Amino acid sequence: MLILKLGGSVVTYKDKPFTPHIDNIARLAAEIAEADAQPLVVVHGGGSYGHPIATEYGIAEGYREPRQIIGFSKTHQAMIELNDIIVRELLDAGVPAFAVSPSSFIVTESRRITDIDLQVVERLIESGLIPVLYGDAVMDTRQGFTIISGDQLAVKLAKGLEAERVVLGSDVDGVFTDDPKLVEDARLIEELSLSNHGDEAKIGDALDTDVTGGMLGKVVEATEAVEAGIEVVLVNATVGGRVRAALRGEKVIGTRLKR
Amino acid sequence: MLILKLGGSVVTYKDKPFTPHIDNIARLAAEIAEADAQPLVVVHGGGSYGHPIATEYGIAEGYREPRQIIGFSKTHQAMIELNDIIVRELLDAGVPAFAVSPSSFIVTESRRITDIDLQVVERLIESGLIPVLYGDAVMDTRQGFTIISGDQLAVKLAKGLEAERVVLGSDVDGVFTDDPKLVEDARLIEELSLSNHGDEAKIGDALDTDVTGGMLGKVVEATEAVEAGIEVVLVNATVGGRVRAALRGEKVIGTRLKR
Repeated sequence: MLILKLGGSVVTYKDKPFTPHIDNIARLAAEIAEADAQPLVVVHGGGSYGHPIATEYGIAEGYREPRQIIGFSKTHQAMIELNDIIVRELLDAGVPAFAVSPSSFIVTESRRITDIDLQVVERLIESGLIPVLYGDAVMDTRQGFTIISGDQLAVKLAKGLEAERVVLGSDVDGVFTDDPKLVEDARLIEELSLSNHGDEAKIGDALDTDVTGGMLGKVVEATEAVEAGIEVVLVNATVGGRVRAALRGEKVIGTRLKR
Repeated sequence: MLILKLGGSVVTYKDKPFTPHIDNIARLAAEIAEADAQPLVVVHGGGSYGHPIATEYGIAEGYREPRQIIGFSKTHQAMIELNDIIVRELLDAGVPAFAVSPSSFIVTESRRITDIDLQVVERLIESGLIPVLYGDAVMDTRQGFTIISGDQLAVKLAKGLEAERVVLGSDVDGVFTDDPKLVEDARLIEELSLSNHGDEAKIGDALDTDVTGGMLGKVVEATEAVEAGIEVVLVNATVGGRVRAALRGEKVIGTRLKR
């Protein structure tokens, strides 16, 4: 059982509202078809679809005023449209993808998925399908509604489905010793041990900075999977072949998280 | 609590593949806004979106061969796209609609919804939202997958949510004594008693024919709601004002089903 997360910066042009990165999506659909690694669940982020609306209406922070209600729904519709594009590219590549809407079966508690009913996802997998989910606007028991990230969802699915490996694809190669955009001799960490780094502050120290392409949040989120004995690999999904190699379990440029 | 079902012949041009009936959808969005009847759940059919693909791949009859897998997913994608159009028209009319994907939380048993987890739908309603669901391609415990009709879903939601009234909107005025297209003096039945008509054959006898615009199936499906004490009204949703009146509980041209 494999979980593949494709970041919003991979499947969309992050700076152009509502613009899918069709080249990346089509190439990744082909890589997924070639990897032929099943069972597999795909999760993708929102990028320039979900984020602009969610931010405009303050959806992640929960309900404060009536006008947010429309924004909550519009955030979900934006994600549905991006998901539709991705599922159709996968189907065109011969991948038996099936769209699953997180907000239709997940309710969070203070922004966190506390339990998740995997009945539908499991049946789809048993039938040879590849469920495709996404970061979404969902109902929350404490704050009315919120946004769940694709990273959180990928990790929860990995735990619930007892996955062997989670591949987190973003637009950077992995975790660096320093921000590679700022520090010239920043070095890619091929293997990052999370032992003794149980909380955000400690991991932040270990990474020396929290501005390395949003990697800190990813690593914190992934800790839960790593502690459950699941292999987590961070790869650059904008570079051809890396996702295919990571799905196949081949050696690949990236960061492997271990306990 | 009200449930409104809009038939595929209302929200699409049934004879033109993938063609939404935008005029009807926009008018009905306005009628729903004007009726101001909450809590409300909307369910719509597939029309020229879901049906052509579902039929091409034999989805309703369940799994027989691998090529159907892609058809199963494509049927769902077609419904997602129609739903997206309807939800956006509702939002534009000021109706706080929220898309809920049936296949993401419903698994049928031999084509029937046996139990349904209404956690998400109930929370959406409590938050002032109007869930919008649809007939969909879903997983089935016996035959792999199937199609659930919007009618079946509307009735199950009505029972589960203890609705007061179900409004079934189609492109005919209601149940007639004969097929109005064939028999000149066919008369609209304003009130149809289902007592002593517990099965399909008996209702068929009562209606004298089963070709009255697919009304027999609707009446059979609705029997479960009527027996639970829920009012069911069949109206012509292609005629302006009728859905609004039915939602408000006003006198309207149509057929009311009673025990």
